Amino acid sequence: MSLSTEPYKGVRDFYPEDQFVQQYIFDAMQRACERFGFEEYNASILEPADLYRKKGAANDELVNEQTYTFIDRGDREVTLRPEMTPSLARMVAARRRELAFPLRWYSIPNVFRYERPQRGRLREHWQLNADLFGVSGIEADVEIILLAHAIMREFGAKESDFEIRINDRRLLEEVLEPLTLTETEHRATMRLLDGRYKHKDFDGALAETLGDARALALITALDSLASSAHLSDLQTRLHELGVNNAVVDTSITRGFDYYTGLVFEVFDTAPDNNRALFGGGRYDRLLELFGDETVPAVGFGMGDVTARDFLDTHDLLPPYVPATELMLLPVDEHASTHAMKLAQNLRSEDVTVAINYSCKRTGDQIRSADKLGIPFVIVIGEKELSSGMYTIKQLASGEEHTVAANRIADHLFSSLG
Amino acid sequence: MSLSTEPYKGVRDFYPEDQFVQQYIFDAMQRACERFGFEEYNASILEPADLYRKKGAANDELVNEQTYTFIDRGDREVTLRPEMTPSLARMVAARRRELAFPLRWYSIPNVFRYERPQRGRLREHWQLNADLFGVSGIEADVEIILLAHAIMREFGAKESDFEIRINDRRLLEEVLEPLTLTETEHRATMRLLDGRYKHKDFDGALAETLGDARALALITALDSLASSAHLSDLQTRLHELGVNNAVVDTSITRGFDYYTGLVFEVFDTAPDNNRALFGGGRYDRLLELFGDETVPAVGFGMGDVTARDFLDTHDLLPPYVPATELMLLPVDEHASTHAMKLAQNLRSEDVTVAINYSCKRTGDQIRSADKLGIPFVIVIGEKELSSGMYTIKQLASGEEHTVAANRIADHLFSSLG
Repeated sequence: MSLSTEPYKGVRDFYPEDQFVQQYIFDAMQRACERFGFEEYNASILEPADLYRKKGAANDELVNEQTYTFIDRGDREVTLRPEMTPSLARMVAARRRELAFPLRWYSIPNVFRYERPQRGRLREHWQLNADLFGVSGIEADVEIILLAHAIMREFGAKESDFEIRINDRRLLEEVLEPLTLTETEHRATMRLLDGRYKHKDFDGALAETLGDARALALITALDSLASSAHLSDLQTRLHELGVNNAVVDTSITRGFDYYTGLVFEVFDTAPDNNRALFGGGRYDRLLELFGDETVPAVGFGMGDVTARDFLDTHDLLPPYVPATELMLLPVDEHASTHAMKLAQNLRSEDVTVAINYSCKRTGDQIRSADKLGIPFVIVIGEKELSSGMYTIKQLASGEEHTVAANRIADHLFSSLG
Repeated sequence: MSLSTEPYKGVRDFYPEDQFVQQYIFDAMQRACERFGFEEYNASILEPADLYRKKGAANDELVNEQTYTFIDRGDREVTLRPEMTPSLARMVAARRRELAFPLRWYSIPNVFRYERPQRGRLREHWQLNADLFGVSGIEADVEIILLAHAIMREFGAKESDFEIRINDRRLLEEVLEPLTLTETEHRATMRLLDGRYKHKDFDGALAETLGDARALALITALDSLASSAHLSDLQTRLHELGVNNAVVDTSITRGFDYYTGLVFEVFDTAPDNNRALFGGGRYDRLLELFGDETVPAVGFGMGDVTARDFLDTHDLLPPYVPATELMLLPVDEHASTHAMKLAQNLRSEDVTVAINYSCKRTGDQIRSADKLGIPFVIVIGEKELSSGMYTIKQLASGEEHTVAANRIADHLFSSLG
């Protein structure tokens, strides 16, 4: 029986056209991060399972039900990282004393969740993580949102294409405190809040959970939270720095327990893709898990699948252009040998050049180059070998230019712009 | 109890300085591949375990003993890919009819082996894979070696720093055929051959395995193989294309069973690191596993760990330079707010710029920037705010230049070259 050509369930193959889009997304993320002074780091996808276990109830569930966790042959429990933040916190904690702060780090790792595959949720996806350590003030909150905004702009998005919804988990907890909620009530309330604007009857559901009096008190308190000095200050600063699409939204809670201040989510405003694209927030206490002193931190994660959906929805995906600029099409073996020398010279001038060694008819070779998306070809036969002159043909336009060997690179670069 | 900051056994954390080297290696590989017209692809690290099982006895061992293989919750047997070639073959087979040939693909995936960690052999490493499909002629063999050579040159290696040892598995099998070896003898002979030049008494060991007569016959046949027309032709062509360090070495066998022609290994010539760096060869029949017609293929894999060791041995590693060119050092909160605006302007001019929000003493802030490796700083205080003139300080030289805000970017770019 022959082997299946299917990939494993819920993961993707990246053919050159797919990888091109992936790389386009990563490059935009990287450019924006580096303009903000973020440096790239990385870690293995293999982590001790314990790393995901100590952050409270919600994460126990994560380790048990939603991660790839297995026992290795040395009897170690290993997890394929479901998110990057714990690895990052581990790395920062490990060198807490040697590192210089403020620390700005980014990475675009693949992360794994054992979930039923569905739109925007695969078992493996890539996720930009950008984090700023060592700044407890509002400047870091402002900067991390500026960066999120800059990435969206780098994608070619207009401000009207997306909205940045901000909230503050510490302020939210302060609002909840006088209500003296039980742990179950707290969790139910957070879940209701998170779905507030999709809920058919939020007020009614809240009253059912907390009783009429506490529900009313909470709704009133949320209104005053929305106009709190802290969140207004954040919005004003963002506005002064060119961000005009940040709004306060007290329904933003974020899933993870580790957030201690700012939380935010970036939403797609398109009617047919109206959903959270990504988000993040402040998590000042995470490093304490490693027995370390508190290090203030703020960051976010942005997945490749939602990014691609966003670009697709807003028609911002670039057309595929292969890395190869030129293909040489020798007509026979003798011309092939010559083509290899010519190609070596062109490579030394930084031309990206492939060769078709099939010696098939020129028409067939041109069709193959065209199918590969390669923009320029040069047919090499007896005439070219004897004259030393080469005709560069642009496949899209059919335009031809005949030049000497040492003018090919210049001609291509000026044509490619 | 607090969490450990150790990574999982046998894998690495990449702090920015480590990631910088990693990226330097990947960039060199990528540049060389793309100059040869190779396009990037990728796949998931998760593959059905069956993918590694059908290639014969040697690979059964691989699945059972040297891979991370586990059962997922849907009762599927999953393997963390130990090498990229099977995924690549799977992808090409899946679109055999739509793809245009010749196909040149590269990828730099991480791969996993469950081995005892030792120098140059970790449980996770990255590995460039470059493969050329659809060319059965010697041109493809030449090209793939040219590419391997080009990558080494791209690393800054001289030809005397490494040696390309070539052999041919088909010719080797032809030499072995008249000896009518049993399967056990065949395996023992290949293993002996592979260690020929490290063996204290190769001839004696061979005689013990095959008997005197067959051992002698084999050694004579190997001598004639070394001067075969095919390998001489390959060497001549390489020489004409600028490769002067390729030698025939009949002890090169390569581990994998799937090779059907050319095999080669690149060796470090340094006395203290005299070992195979990487290798590859021709595997024309691999796609048959997927029930597909034969597609000729030739390629190689090059690991990051051995590449880094090579660069280290030959003193070719570049010094760490962070992505961040400039750090702004505001003296107080008022100056911080101003610094954020200045930074936004500089980012729009493509300067990579970080800000220190600590409001610590300038000396402390400069030390922090220096520790981060950031080459330039600008202190921002009352004087800068009122004058609109900024002093750019280069930390390495101590040189200072005072310019207006709109001249900062130009000054940096000219200083950075």
